[in-house]
Amino acid sequence: MGIKVFAPASIGNIGVGFDILGMAIERPGDEVIARKSDTPGLRITKITGHNGKLPYAVEQNTAGVAALRLLEHLGESGRGIELEIHKKMPLGSGLGSSAASAVAAVLAVSELLRTGLGKRELLPFACAGEQVASGGFHADNVAPSLLGGIILIRDNATLDVHRLHVPRGLYATVVYPQLQVLTKEARAILKPEVPLADYVRQSANVAGFIVGCFNGDVGLIGRSLRDDIIEPQRAGLIPGFRDVQAAAMAEGVLGCSISGAGPSVFALSANSLIAENAGQAMQRAFARHQIESQVFLSPVNQEGAVIC
Amino acid sequence: MGIKVFAPASIGNIGVGFDILGMAIERPGDEVIARKSDTPGLRITKITGHNGKLPYAVEQNTAGVAALRLLEHLGESGRGIELEIHKKMPLGSGLGSSAASAVAAVLAVSELLRTGLGKRELLPFACAGEQVASGGFHADNVAPSLLGGIILIRDNATLDVHRLHVPRGLYATVVYPQLQVLTKEARAILKPEVPLADYVRQSANVAGFIVGCFNGDVGLIGRSLRDDIIEPQRAGLIPGFRDVQAAAMAEGVLGCSISGAGPSVFALSANSLIAENAGQAMQRAFARHQIESQVFLSPVNQEGAVIC
Repeated sequence: MGIKVFAPASIGNIGVGFDILGMAIERPGDEVIARKSDTPGLRITKITGHNGKLPYAVEQNTAGVAALRLLEHLGESGRGIELEIHKKMPLGSGLGSSAASAVAAVLAVSELLRTGLGKRELLPFACAGEQVASGGFHADNVAPSLLGGIILIRDNATLDVHRLHVPRGLYATVVYPQLQVLTKEARAILKPEVPLADYVRQSANVAGFIVGCFNGDVGLIGRSLRDDIIEPQRAGLIPGFRDVQAAAMAEGVLGCSISGAGPSVFALSANSLIAENAGQAMQRAFARHQIESQVFLSPVNQEGAVIC
Repeated sequence: MGIKVFAPASIGNIGVGFDILGMAIERPGDEVIARKSDTPGLRITKITGHNGKLPYAVEQNTAGVAALRLLEHLGESGRGIELEIHKKMPLGSGLGSSAASAVAAVLAVSELLRTGLGKRELLPFACAGEQVASGGFHADNVAPSLLGGIILIRDNATLDVHRLHVPRGLYATVVYPQLQVLTKEARAILKPEVPLADYVRQSANVAGFIVGCFNGDVGLIGRSLRDDIIEPQRAGLIPGFRDVQAAAMAEGVLGCSISGAGPSVFALSANSLIAENAGQAMQRAFARHQIESQVFLSPVNQEGAVIC
């Protein structure tokens, strides 16, 4: 008998909240199955959907490290456990793929061993796993994938994370183009300084986005959902981005920006119809640049990772 | 018969929210009395508490300009009205003194003429008045003084302002030292750029402060209430500031920083006892630097400007 867990993709940054906001969506996501084994130690026995890109060596695999850190914490690192990882979302998409695998692995192992640990207690182990892929201890994809909802990460070191209220009807469109953007490159191009006026405007907008969420004020969310600092620096990494964004805005979305480090582009809408129309328009805009893309539509995922 | 209005002082920036947050307190504040007169036109007939520093010429006086802009909007600029301005708070203190006078004047004239305008409709006229003193169209003191509460100013140009939820028990200590800090100088010393890492940390903290307000989480408010960008640059303008801040923190306040452009220093506390103890400790700390100071204690003022 095993435990199967689904952990969803997430929209890192949500445009206005660079490195501090993340939001879970319902699809896509990764699945991890954990099973007890008579052979001592943690092993990865199967990985699907990764095109041979992911290592089976536990210490080099985000899901493996996440599970291992949990087992070490429990004093159970000798325990015989097998993991199957089913990648059902693209790697390097800006949708928190490695975070989802780490989250799914930690929750599956925790349930398998009936640890009684709550999701918040599992957060550090999932972050430790995700660190293998990202190189840093960040919760901006891990926390929404695990906990669900729209999450503020006030501090990564202490995992001071908080759920925002989610306005009724808020709907996400995510368009994943067949492009590669390396997170390292997307980070390296950022200027080390921000003009003071841009800082003030962006902090007003991140504040407006949060107040809009708590007050259910989608108009305020729309006025606030813009990134004047990071997006202009990264837009050039995604051919056609400005056209895709304009196509989304023309459909009446609240805002449209880059998910995480890209290349996925997301939009938030006040309802599912606008979100759907925007998805089609965004896909057509990428197609005009000879770029194929996949569209995902989803309300905010309030559950996060779940046992299937 | 006249109308007398009290408009309260306000804590601009609230440390973590440079140019975007402001909070009304209960004391001190300014009073303006508006009376009808048979002599056409707006006149300022009396100013008290200003040590001769404020002009009687309507177009040069914040209260006068604020009232005048309202009268022009109403098509009533020929109307005979007399204003008395009673300054009951220090000028140039960082407590929004000019904003309070502008707010009080606008509300008094609006009530005198029974315009039926709501407070939000009066906001632009009060901002126009305050602009005479500050040189810019800013609502960060005007909006809290008029509306009360803790206010986010997402955008000054469109006066996109929003009230935050105010956690129960939150208490302010304000210490006004006998020092002069010119707002222009306090603004001129600011570096034109902010390091990216500081921007991320500060946006996380402004977000944390707002989430803490909405969730009534004073612990989160305490962790978030720090200004790593503006305060370090302005601390040197206020002799003894670091000692005063340390004295407040030692009493268990949630946070302590500079009110507006200074020289007033404020602290927020989870209850009035801590606020009171902090006030005494902060005053003693200033005294060790041979600086006399005044202490004001107040819950968050939820009413804003009121007719007396």
